[in-house]
Amino acid sequence: MAVNRLGYVHARVTDLEEAIGHYSNTLGQRIVEQQDGRVYLKSWDEFDHHSVVLEEGGVGLVKLGFKVQTDDDLAGYEKRITQFGATTERMSKGENLAVGDGLRVVLPSEHVVEFYTEMEYLGTETGTWNPDPWPRDTRGAGVHRLDHALIAAEDPALVERFFMECLDFRPAERLISDPTEPDLVGSWLFCGQKAHDLAVIKGENGKLHHWAYWLDDWNDVLRAGDIFSMDEVSIDIGPTRHGITRGKTIYFFDPSGNRNEVFTGGYITGADFPTITWTTDQIGKAIFYVTRELNDRFTSVFT
Amino acid sequence: MAVNRLGYVHARVTDLEEAIGHYSNTLGQRIVEQQDGRVYLKSWDEFDHHSVVLEEGGVGLVKLGFKVQTDDDLAGYEKRITQFGATTERMSKGENLAVGDGLRVVLPSEHVVEFYTEMEYLGTETGTWNPDPWPRDTRGAGVHRLDHALIAAEDPALVERFFMECLDFRPAERLISDPTEPDLVGSWLFCGQKAHDLAVIKGENGKLHHWAYWLDDWNDVLRAGDIFSMDEVSIDIGPTRHGITRGKTIYFFDPSGNRNEVFTGGYITGADFPTITWTTDQIGKAIFYVTRELNDRFTSVFT
Amino acid sequence: MAVNRLGYVHARVTDLEEAIGHYSNTLGQRIVEQQDGRVYLKSWDEFDHHSVVLEEGGVGLVKLGFKVQTDDDLAGYEKRITQFGATTERMSKGENLAVGDGLRVVLPSEHVVEFYTEMEYLGTETGTWNPDPWPRDTRGAGVHRLDHALIAAEDPALVERFFMECLDFRPAERLISDPTEPDLVGSWLFCGQKAHDLAVIKGENGKLHHWAYWLDDWNDVLRAGDIFSMDEVSIDIGPTRHGITRGKTIYFFDPSGNRNEVFTGGYITGADFPTITWTTDQIGKAIFYVTRELNDRFTSVFT
Amino acid sequence: MAVNRLGYVHARVTDLEEAIGHYSNTLGQRIVEQQDGRVYLKSWDEFDHHSVVLEEGGVGLVKLGFKVQTDDDLAGYEKRITQFGATTERMSKGENLAVGDGLRVVLPSEHVVEFYTEMEYLGTETGTWNPDPWPRDTRGAGVHRLDHALIAAEDPALVERFFMECLDFRPAERLISDPTEPDLVGSWLFCGQKAHDLAVIKGENGKLHHWAYWLDDWNDVLRAGDIFSMDEVSIDIGPTRHGITRGKTIYFFDPSGNRNEVFTGGYITGADFPTITWTTDQIGKAIFYVTRELNDRFTSVFT
Repeated sequence: MAVNRLGYVHARVTDLEEAIGHYSNTLGQRIVEQQDGRVYLKSWDEFDHHSVVLEEGGVGLVKLGFKVQTDDDLAGYEKRITQFGATTERMSKGENLAVGDGLRVVLPSEHVVEFYTEMEYLGTETGTWNPDPWPRDTRGAGVHRLDHALIAAEDPALVERFFMECLDFRPAERLISDPTEPDLVGSWLFCGQKAHDLAVIKGENGKLHHWAYWLDDWNDVLRAGDIFSMDEVSIDIGPTRHGITRGKTIYFFDPSGNRNEVFTGGYITGADFPTITWTTDQIGKAIFYVTRELNDRFTSVFT
Repeated sequence: MAVNRLGYVHARVTDLEEAIGHYSNTLGQRIVEQQDGRVYLKSWDEFDHHSVVLEEGGVGLVKLGFKVQTDDDLAGYEKRITQFGATTERMSKGENLAVGDGLRVVLPSEHVVEFYTEMEYLGTETGTWNPDPWPRDTRGAGVHRLDHALIAAEDPALVERFFMECLDFRPAERLISDPTEPDLVGSWLFCGQKAHDLAVIKGENGKLHHWAYWLDDWNDVLRAGDIFSMDEVSIDIGPTRHGITRGKTIYFFDPSGNRNEVFTGGYITGADFPTITWTTDQIGKAIFYVTRELNDRFTSVFT
Repeated sequence: MAVNRLGYVHARVTDLEEAIGHYSNTLGQRIVEQQDGRVYLKSWDEFDHHSVVLEEGGVGLVKLGFKVQTDDDLAGYEKRITQFGATTERMSKGENLAVGDGLRVVLPSEHVVEFYTEMEYLGTETGTWNPDPWPRDTRGAGVHRLDHALIAAEDPALVERFFMECLDFRPAERLISDPTEPDLVGSWLFCGQKAHDLAVIKGENGKLHHWAYWLDDWNDVLRAGDIFSMDEVSIDIGPTRHGITRGKTIYFFDPSGNRNEVFTGGYITGADFPTITWTTDQIGKAIFYVTRELNDRFTSVFT
Repeated sequence: MAVNRLGYVHARVTDLEEAIGHYSNTLGQRIVEQQDGRVYLKSWDEFDHHSVVLEEGGVGLVKLGFKVQTDDDLAGYEKRITQFGATTERMSKGENLAVGDGLRVVLPSEHVVEFYTEMEYLGTETGTWNPDPWPRDTRGAGVHRLDHALIAAEDPALVERFFMECLDFRPAERLISDPTEPDLVGSWLFCGQKAHDLAVIKGENGKLHHWAYWLDDWNDVLRAGDIFSMDEVSIDIGPTRHGITRGKTIYFFDPSGNRNEVFTGGYITGADFPTITWTTDQIGKAIFYVTRELNDRFTSVFT
């Protein structure tokens, strides 16, 4: 494991003040910094400086950041990515607030992804000294941490191959159209032992489907749903269970229309995890296990 | 409190064998008796002989049964019901398997409802002697007991008045069209301390919306949903939370198309409970609190 | 059902300020009124003026209050109680803040219990108009409402008979020493459809074992336990499950040493509920179902 | 990450038939093979051949097995372990049923630990093709998988250093006696992203404190506790929460006296996880967060 995790999501919102209300009061992230038209947010169980960056102007993804273990890992990735044929450039400490030197890559799906080894350390809200299991003063849904993102690509198989060959990701689950002549519709990829850190599904290049926050359990998912109703958050679907990853979920939209998720459950993966395959004739069950019906929004709304 | 509870639901199903599979393997009720084209089922935490009777031939409700405390109560109800102007007749022990003498009434909404004081006692599956909290060998969703039913009426206010004036029910919650000139759209009525024992909403006379089984908590609701997916049960909506009663729920259909519910949560009522009022401009939130959207089926599918 | 519920617990505490911290910040009750050395508290889901009264000076119970449906019920109870041979006197509106006229009784176990039909109405924190399922700004453990109390008596059978004969309570569960020649050790009595409203166990007359608050589910019980640890509340036992009532529980002590409980689960009773019997050879399982071991405190610490 | 996980626990039991009842009927593991006085068990969510081996004759640990990613990793570990000064020998495919070639090491704490890259693949009970989230026919507590083990050592710091220097483990949490002059009392070590895979506390060399199985959530922990009571399993402590790892837990004993745990919760770690430190003045909170009291058994009973 050399890629530690999805470290940050940097996205656009149409109205920064509305967005702050959503991510702070409703989801419960803390505002770490606000400068140059951007707001930097972290969740209570994250120790790095921030996990979400929002900037005003439209909707959708600006870029993703993955934290990598060592500079040697970064150099190795750079070599492999260049060989793969993707565009890459070095980035310097300070180009991103609180983030060190790194590598900026344009994926075959046109998404910008940054890799870095250092981010300013702020510590979690419970600390590292005889800590409580959660902070007494959580806000709103009290999301624990950024969990994963799902992006769209015209050629999901190419993006999957990119992450596998260049970055040692592996697919926990794959969605294919036909068992005999498989066309990859989606791939749920992990870099360590989680069910997924980044997923990709068929769609327009450069687009974002959602990013997800971790909650403790199914009760906290309903509690989040109650708070979403109190705060008039637009719900996509849920609470329900995913077939893929077994996760428990609510999909919803921030005030600008970016889709978020609260997520829990799943399983532990690892290097020898046997990939699970879903076929599109079971796509309803794959995505929303209980009802076995896709809603239209799930496959049509990207930002 | 003189009406103890909704004691049984007697319904029609198109195929008895399919129905047995659903109510027994999937929901986990036990078959107590099968005779004369009818099957009698009980749940593990019910001590009376049965709580559901199914007979082959169509769909929808045959009748409901309410267990009453004493014969004096029955006599008093008979008088009040006659005064109210509803049709009533005495029924004899044996007309219903395992049920004693009683009263048969046709509601103003054309539903047949029976009142009785005695049913053969079979005991719960955990018994009354140093009992375990649940039976080790529960089946399927493991429903605990029948909880309530929701019926349709052209004039919900009339049915509400019937149950209040003749049977001492009280409304826990009411749904009205307009605060200034209220037209009653639905009423959730209790006879003891539960959030509801019988509810009525605007619709075609004689029709059934659903009957509901009790589960322990929100986790068991998801577990039921998982089992419904494994057993290919048709889902109406859920898992989600109701605004009305605060309950946690999945609506689904038996193989014949009768709607069932698994339900938990809510609150304790009682004689001095202050009725809650919902207005139809908030009907989405009232019915499905998280998404705040009614699905079409909820208001259109009755049996 | 004519006794609605346990309406209030009036207890003594050694230090009022400490007690306010516990009942308000930790348990989440709201201070309604503070006057004449007494503080009046209510929980968010209670509509009457208060459910707990604390006064400075020692520990233990001053009295319990039960809310009764009508004045006719009160008069009937008065007659029966007098016939039973217990001491009773009329009390007037204003003797207890916000409580109407009523009846004051000294139980055979020397506890003072008041019965009343009216208490000033304040409403719940979610209200009766298109309400949310819970208030967004709950404090601490967020207890919903007073649920029940457990008192000690030298002769539990006498107290049980008092509540059954004078007040129409029924036992949901009974703990006996020996099936052949039963000596009643404890009785869990209900007045409506709950698993219990008042329980009595063998012990010194006039003493209190605990009073209990309702929570939504097992997750909220752990959440309460976490908060008790953060706030350094002294724990008696839990989280665990009771055999008796199937309830899920933590017992703990207020700063003065009065035992409280957070409680959820159980089942619905009613007039025809078949009483469950436990034998003292299974007392460990009866009280703490998982470990099957009584701790010493449970049977020795009363206030 | 090159050590994937704790792959198996091989332990002694006094009576194999009793043990099979416990691990199979109560915990829900499946018997994969029984031969030569040994029984091999796996959990429903494990894909390798087995995770627990039991052999008759006494109690306590025979050895632990860790699955490693590649043979190169094995060779590298061998070199580092030899340099560290620990005893190591090569083992061959077939020495352990269904396990490939590997490395056998005697820890500084005298425990035998095996490292291997291959184990016969049997698949999980839900499979890899459009899988359900859990198998419809789980048995007993339905444990998902082996999670971690806790061993005793006279010098925990030496064992911690061994796993850190030779095998790239890192401590998620550490328990020290005094912040100024720290003496390591315990260390909770992870190899991937879990809260811990192996922990070590001060005690007699070669001894086992417990091994743990994963469950889905806090509700499943209580459900397991209920089943333990039904099956008369001896409970050590719980259900409760750990301060260390935030986990939710029950400790209990198999019929031979080996301590097991059911465990859920915790958090995600990784290479940059900031180690949490507990001080022994907070040991009660560290081990049992809610009650903040160690029971005697926890620190005295090892097998």
